[in-house]
Amino acid sequence: MKYLSIIKTFIFILAYNSFAIADHHSSSEHGSKTKYVTYNQIGNPADVLEVKTEVSRALNKGEVRVKVLAAPINPSDVLQIAGMYGVDAVLPARPGSEGVGRVTEIAPEVNSLKVGQLVLLASGNTWAEELVGPVSGFLPLPDLGPISADVIEQLAMSAVNPLTALLMLTSFEDINEGQWIAQSAANSAVGGYVIQLAKQRGIKTVNIVRREGLAEDLKSKGADIVLIDGPDLAEQIAEATGNAPIMLALDPVGGDTYGRLADSLGYGGTLVTYGVLSGKPATLNTGKVIFNDTRLRGFWLYKWYQTATMQDKQEAFGQVIPLIANGTLKANIDSRYSVDQIEEAVTRAWSGGRNGKVLIVPSPIE
Amino acid sequence: MKYLSIIKTFIFILAYNSFAIADHHSSSEHGSKTKYVTYNQIGNPADVLEVKTEVSRALNKGEVRVKVLAAPINPSDVLQIAGMYGVDAVLPARPGSEGVGRVTEIAPEVNSLKVGQLVLLASGNTWAEELVGPVSGFLPLPDLGPISADVIEQLAMSAVNPLTALLMLTSFEDINEGQWIAQSAANSAVGGYVIQLAKQRGIKTVNIVRREGLAEDLKSKGADIVLIDGPDLAEQIAEATGNAPIMLALDPVGGDTYGRLADSLGYGGTLVTYGVLSGKPATLNTGKVIFNDTRLRGFWLYKWYQTATMQDKQEAFGQVIPLIANGTLKANIDSRYSVDQIEEAVTRAWSGGRNGKVLIVPSPIE
Repeated sequence: MKYLSIIKTFIFILAYNSFAIADHHSSSEHGSKTKYVTYNQIGNPADVLEVKTEVSRALNKGEVRVKVLAAPINPSDVLQIAGMYGVDAVLPARPGSEGVGRVTEIAPEVNSLKVGQLVLLASGNTWAEELVGPVSGFLPLPDLGPISADVIEQLAMSAVNPLTALLMLTSFEDINEGQWIAQSAANSAVGGYVIQLAKQRGIKTVNIVRREGLAEDLKSKGADIVLIDGPDLAEQIAEATGNAPIMLALDPVGGDTYGRLADSLGYGGTLVTYGVLSGKPATLNTGKVIFNDTRLRGFWLYKWYQTATMQDKQEAFGQVIPLIANGTLKANIDSRYSVDQIEEAVTRAWSGGRNGKVLIVPSPIE
Repeated sequence: MKYLSIIKTFIFILAYNSFAIADHHSSSEHGSKTKYVTYNQIGNPADVLEVKTEVSRALNKGEVRVKVLAAPINPSDVLQIAGMYGVDAVLPARPGSEGVGRVTEIAPEVNSLKVGQLVLLASGNTWAEELVGPVSGFLPLPDLGPISADVIEQLAMSAVNPLTALLMLTSFEDINEGQWIAQSAANSAVGGYVIQLAKQRGIKTVNIVRREGLAEDLKSKGADIVLIDGPDLAEQIAEATGNAPIMLALDPVGGDTYGRLADSLGYGGTLVTYGVLSGKPATLNTGKVIFNDTRLRGFWLYKWYQTATMQDKQEAFGQVIPLIANGTLKANIDSRYSVDQIEEAVTRAWSGGRNGKVLIVPSPIE
């Protein structure tokens, strides 16, 4: 398995942490003021989100202070604020599920992180200028050499969409080099990662979108085929692939697209749903499910995080982090907003015509 | 496993055949005339089916002649004639997929069957007065002692519906004593077998039907709960079972019933579709599939017969045959027709208000 050396390296770093030289001589920033986003009721994010200011508190034992560099607005964040997610938020809540930051202060006894180090923000509340919390909530990044603001932004998006793409590609069917998969909403962030991860494995992709003008961008990411969704989708896919058996299809759209993808599968193939972008119930030809031994499943990253072992997580991150760092995995960024601009930011994130992810970037990344 | 002794007995019988005393002294019936059903075009069964008469031919080497005692009209038979099945018939075709018969003549070298023996008709073409073919097409029944016409009729239905019920109950989820399953079209033949097999295992059943007046019959078969389908089905099921997690649901209806059953499942539960009685595409809340880790599968007995090993088949038959013979497994019989009455018979089999299976009974069973 060609990723083994990368995984081993990353596990080594996670376990033994080559940055473990503690530096207790940083400038403490407590006492200064810092902004964060919060909400105290479920509803339209643009209405219910508030920006608040608090005084930075002193660190307790085992805590670190981290300056947030970048944090994305993911669909799951917005859905949870709107009360449309599988788990309700405990109110008042601070939104934001992932991001990247830089350690600015550590409590004296902390020796697994050092000031200045880049960390993934693993404990939520990331739409904020600063996070203070136990060291376990911050995942040290391996030494990636000199690192640009672009890569830092990409790393801010590593814990949700790239893992979703990786796990859907590898957990349900054993797809080999030269075989085909299909996916809808191929121009989404997850869709882009699926294309890139598939390409890297020699797996061919049929990418379905709902509007013209996206093919060039998707092909530049490695897409083999880009098709426009429609009632004849199964026929389009069969023609474009020369009737190749599609053993895995991924759908975050629902509605009729779901049933069309199910109809496109080869005998015994699996359709994985991971979103309901259309907002509509899916339709499904169950006769085909019977005669074609179709398997229909769902994927929810939240549950994976709850049930995966530490080794599972290390292996998954160990696969995506080096690929993000070296530019193989990359999502489009639509726009950047400060914490103060959260209303504009979520409005943009919730709108249809975006071309990429909306990021909260509290201050210019240095 | 409490069925092991029964299975072993049946495997023994299948393998070594306690009736293996050849009797070559039967009265040959070749030269007489015999009727059978056939069709030469796909279409409405009542229109395309024909009754033909042929002269009984002499047996070739390794062949036997069997008088058909009873053969059911299954939905899959009718669907195949109508061109709505997963496999097309090769025309001209002789319909009928199962039944029971009595051996009336054997070729001299045949020593695994004897004249007078009851056999399952395993090679199709069963809507006929007589079948002639290789001995491998007839499955000897174990010695069941004195056997009534009622039991013979029940045995005629053993290869399709009871096996469908057994395999759906045991192949997808490991349901234990005291746990609940749910099924739609509970008043179908398969539905009845599911109730009886579940009862026998101590599994509780929620049975969904589409009209009033069926509860008494289903409860006499062992049904725990009988509900009328409707938009609030998931809530009805939750209330009736005290919010028990339903880990397996079986649906031959499709349409909205499919989605309601999917919504009724416990976390990680499986919905198995095996028919499309509603004739409508299924609807499905894919959000629930994601958050509830729902698994959706199909079951097709035809494929099982194609891929199961001889041991799989012996085990499955070994479970159902003794239960049919002792009356534990029993389907309602709606009506009986001769081969000549095939048009009436399929019309009745295709109509909605039936209460049981339609059988072809060529002549009174002796």
